Amino acid sequence: MSLSGRPGHFGSRFHNRLYALLGLDYVYKAFTTTDLAGAIGGIRALGIRGCAVSMPFKEAVIPLLDALDPSAQAIKSVNTIVNDDGRLTGFNTDYVAVRRLLTEHAVDPATPCLLRGSGGMAKAVVAALRDGGFRNGTILARNTQAGAALAERYGYAFATDLDGRTAPLLVNVTPIGMDGPDADALAFPLDAVAACAIAFDVVALPARTPFLVAAERAGKSCITGHAVLVLQGLEQFIRYTGVTPTPEQVADAAAYART
Amino acid sequence: MSLSGRPGHFGSRFHNRLYALLGLDYVYKAFTTTDLAGAIGGIRALGIRGCAVSMPFKEAVIPLLDALDPSAQAIKSVNTIVNDDGRLTGFNTDYVAVRRLLTEHAVDPATPCLLRGSGGMAKAVVAALRDGGFRNGTILARNTQAGAALAERYGYAFATDLDGRTAPLLVNVTPIGMDGPDADALAFPLDAVAACAIAFDVVALPARTPFLVAAERAGKSCITGHAVLVLQGLEQFIRYTGVTPTPEQVADAAAYART
Repeated sequence: MSLSGRPGHFGSRFHNRLYALLGLDYVYKAFTTTDLAGAIGGIRALGIRGCAVSMPFKEAVIPLLDALDPSAQAIKSVNTIVNDDGRLTGFNTDYVAVRRLLTEHAVDPATPCLLRGSGGMAKAVVAALRDGGFRNGTILARNTQAGAALAERYGYAFATDLDGRTAPLLVNVTPIGMDGPDADALAFPLDAVAACAIAFDVVALPARTPFLVAAERAGKSCITGHAVLVLQGLEQFIRYTGVTPTPEQVADAAAYART
Repeated sequence: MSLSGRPGHFGSRFHNRLYALLGLDYVYKAFTTTDLAGAIGGIRALGIRGCAVSMPFKEAVIPLLDALDPSAQAIKSVNTIVNDDGRLTGFNTDYVAVRRLLTEHAVDPATPCLLRGSGGMAKAVVAALRDGGFRNGTILARNTQAGAALAERYGYAFATDLDGRTAPLLVNVTPIGMDGPDADALAFPLDAVAACAIAFDVVALPARTPFLVAAERAGKSCITGHAVLVLQGLEQFIRYTGVTPTPEQVADAAAYART
């Protein structure tokens, strides 16, 4: 199941499709709640195997769990709960997914990065970068307190304004370019994109944000938020079921969930 | 959803089949629990619309609810919870189903009845008989305390042994004839069956118990536990969804759930 302030349909469609493809006797349902402790108590009492956790519950859920996996421990942010016979462990599969994508795209950890954003997902991405060996980074955020704290914690530089900055690895972890009021906005200006080598956008809806469209047109290597979304869901699936689907099954479920 | 000590598959298959036939965006899942209060708290916190309640939770659940429908109030036994925006009301659709079946089969309330059993389901059946106008009844039970209390409450006679008794309406509310150790046993002896007019067995698995097979062979009118099971499920479905399926849809779901 999932718990979030505004339940979407990606998780339900992705996981239920994989259950069907693999013949697994599970069912996945998205929930919201105004009583987080009651909801987590229900997961224990009903023996629900796992739960995805989204905004605004990623930090508030921590005191209600029994243990934190290292993926969630360092950043104090949980996006996945696994229930082993009543013992609830919190994971962060966004962190796991970002680390895997940086490895799969063979991004050299010596690459300087400029990351825009300072929210919950930014914590997971900065931690994944830093734990992946990326020591040379700058965090750009309007929220001075959160941005400076995040930068200080991981030894990154901090800036509130772009001021012509760019970097070989540009990472957007803000809602800029997401379906909604900021859908047409560019997370980084075109000259910053032109000067980069790799564009990484955590926004998943749409899969092709204005930032990534600009990077594609300029012939840059791209890592999409859709890839993060699918990979973090796959990491959840493996932890919930103990089963690893084939890449074809994952691609099928991802395409199904996108519709 | 459902809560029971030993979850079966009838409810899941029956309700999910009707959701599919009617294009309703619900999903039904069977659960068990060792923490009934936590489970009911989860129903509230997650906004789960309804819950079937089976042994051993039918009475224990009452203090955890906000209100009891008259169908559950008199017998202090709940087999169905409906959640209206966090307000939980307990119903007993077994009671409702037995009343409807007696009416549908046009059983004259003046018919004397002999009812075997004194458990939770016996309470629902005796109350349905009595509220349907059946004043002339005898309860036959090995459990002297429960049987005598039930008989006294509804103004019925009480007996611990059959002693050659029979009645025009014979009702079995024991597990005799149910799949398991008592599968081959007759709830009433053949001479009692021969002397009756209507045989009513609450055992649903199998649909044709030895008692009902004997009654059929003797040309008697029969009311089956399977009919009770389907009708109480239909009454739940209507309360959960506000939608009344067609008789053909109910028959389809019942046949599907039986397999």
